[in-house]
Amino acid sequence: MSAVPSGVVTPVACCQLALSVGDLDGNRAAAQQAIKGAAAAGAKVVVLPELANSGYVFRDTAEASELAEPFDGPTVTGWTEMARRHDLIVVGGICERDEGGRLHNSAVLVDADGVRALYRKAHLWDAEKTIFEPGAELPPVVDTAVGRIGVLVCYDLEFPEWVRTVALRGADLLCAPVNWPLFPRPEGERPAEVVRVQANAAVNRMFVAACDRTGVERGVSWTGGSVIADPDGHPAAGPLPTYEEGMVIAKCKLGDARDKRLSARNDVFADRRPDLYRSILQSVVRTDSRTS
Amino acid sequence: MSAVPSGVVTPVACCQLALSVGDLDGNRAAAQQAIKGAAAAGAKVVVLPELANSGYVFRDTAEASELAEPFDGPTVTGWTEMARRHDLIVVGGICERDEGGRLHNSAVLVDADGVRALYRKAHLWDAEKTIFEPGAELPPVVDTAVGRIGVLVCYDLEFPEWVRTVALRGADLLCAPVNWPLFPRPEGERPAEVVRVQANAAVNRMFVAACDRTGVERGVSWTGGSVIADPDGHPAAGPLPTYEEGMVIAKCKLGDARDKRLSARNDVFADRRPDLYRSILQSVVRTDSRTS
Repeated sequence: MSAVPSGVVTPVACCQLALSVGDLDGNRAAAQQAIKGAAAAGAKVVVLPELANSGYVFRDTAEASELAEPFDGPTVTGWTEMARRHDLIVVGGICERDEGGRLHNSAVLVDADGVRALYRKAHLWDAEKTIFEPGAELPPVVDTAVGRIGVLVCYDLEFPEWVRTVALRGADLLCAPVNWPLFPRPEGERPAEVVRVQANAAVNRMFVAACDRTGVERGVSWTGGSVIADPDGHPAAGPLPTYEEGMVIAKCKLGDARDKRLSARNDVFADRRPDLYRSILQSVVRTDSRTS
Repeated sequence: MSAVPSGVVTPVACCQLALSVGDLDGNRAAAQQAIKGAAAAGAKVVVLPELANSGYVFRDTAEASELAEPFDGPTVTGWTEMARRHDLIVVGGICERDEGGRLHNSAVLVDADGVRALYRKAHLWDAEKTIFEPGAELPPVVDTAVGRIGVLVCYDLEFPEWVRTVALRGADLLCAPVNWPLFPRPEGERPAEVVRVQANAAVNRMFVAACDRTGVERGVSWTGGSVIADPDGHPAAGPLPTYEEGMVIAKCKLGDARDKRLSARNDVFADRRPDLYRSILQSVVRTDSRTS
């Protein structure tokens, strides 16, 4: 287990990119350019959006399949080269084809040593269910040079139990490539997606970096709102505006996430009551939703 | 199970009171006055702060013990009379002494039929651990005339698993009496406590009403910020300012909480992956915190 002395500052960046479905070369170039910019700004961890190679709004499974690549394909190989060159960590989303030909909405964590972790999104959003195979493994928590980093993708963040599995296994920083479709919200309110990132950070006293895309793709707008939340639940950087490419970078003392105390007598992990949660969290529950 | 036709509007109120530790008569009068005001404004559910009979900052266990009363003591009896008179539901916190003489930080739900539920706070905050016995039962979800109402108290809200146990058992509205000590926060940021209420509402697609106190008690200030969040995670009313007595009231279509769908293919309950959560959520976890 890596020691992260308290006080060490790690710059963490989210690169909010305008991607374009189907434009593999353009998307790869945009990500490379963004990583270079983040490195120039001093970033040691760079988070990219979900499905950063392919874009998001596929016409159908066939189109997604054409754009998919293995986790060690050209996109991730490019990220690894950038990670080596600039001595940093990249977490980004890809449209992945596995050995058996199945498609996954995946994210990788790469550093100078190559691909350290592959994660397949376990909670699929809407039409993703018609295209991707959901993940069936716990999300990774990787011991890196800057601390322990967990990886989730987008809708995963709406399941606090899932976020907890990352936090309880010791993540100092959770990196989440996302593609948040834009929903209407009351004027003056932050996107609910950003609010949930903040809450996930606070209840687990860890850092959370969520990197969204921007632009309009086949009629779908994205929320933007890329944000890095601190263990108190406040934004350390961001959220970015909706229709803007750009980068947020925060100087994170990742070692702060090792201290789960809230008061002389409180610790957000030690205060949990798992024996009381057990019976309910596992049960099949009643819902009145008229699910289709 | 009560049917809540979609579209029916239920006014829900939180009464942010300035209480005073030790002043049982004054605190009871303040709560009664607040309930009366909420009824006049049309409220059908009235939420009061945590420890609304006693105040919060006890000198020691002896003082808390002197101020404690049975769950069917004068404070709650008074609330029940108000509930009958105005045909509404009251959820409020009390310093409770049980049959065995143990103290609990409790909340009750009362309606015209009397005490419908007693809940004892399961996650105790700081010095509460030296005074109160923690609850060992699941929180109540009560079938009322306006819908299903769950009850938690303050720090409980920081454990998303605990909130989930209420949501999964069908709560349309979660009522939480709270006493949020005021912490510093970045300028322009909402209190992290409010952010967590919003996220709890969103991930469970239910309403959450958190009622804080205000004022300064023995050097402790309170956050205020009483808020009613809707199933999208946005405030339906509030948050109130820190140093202000007052009421927030929101017209809640509680039936909306019966529909957990987010898209044609998504349902926040049906999309859960409890088999994947199981192994981790129950394990004793590693923490580097130097807990005292």
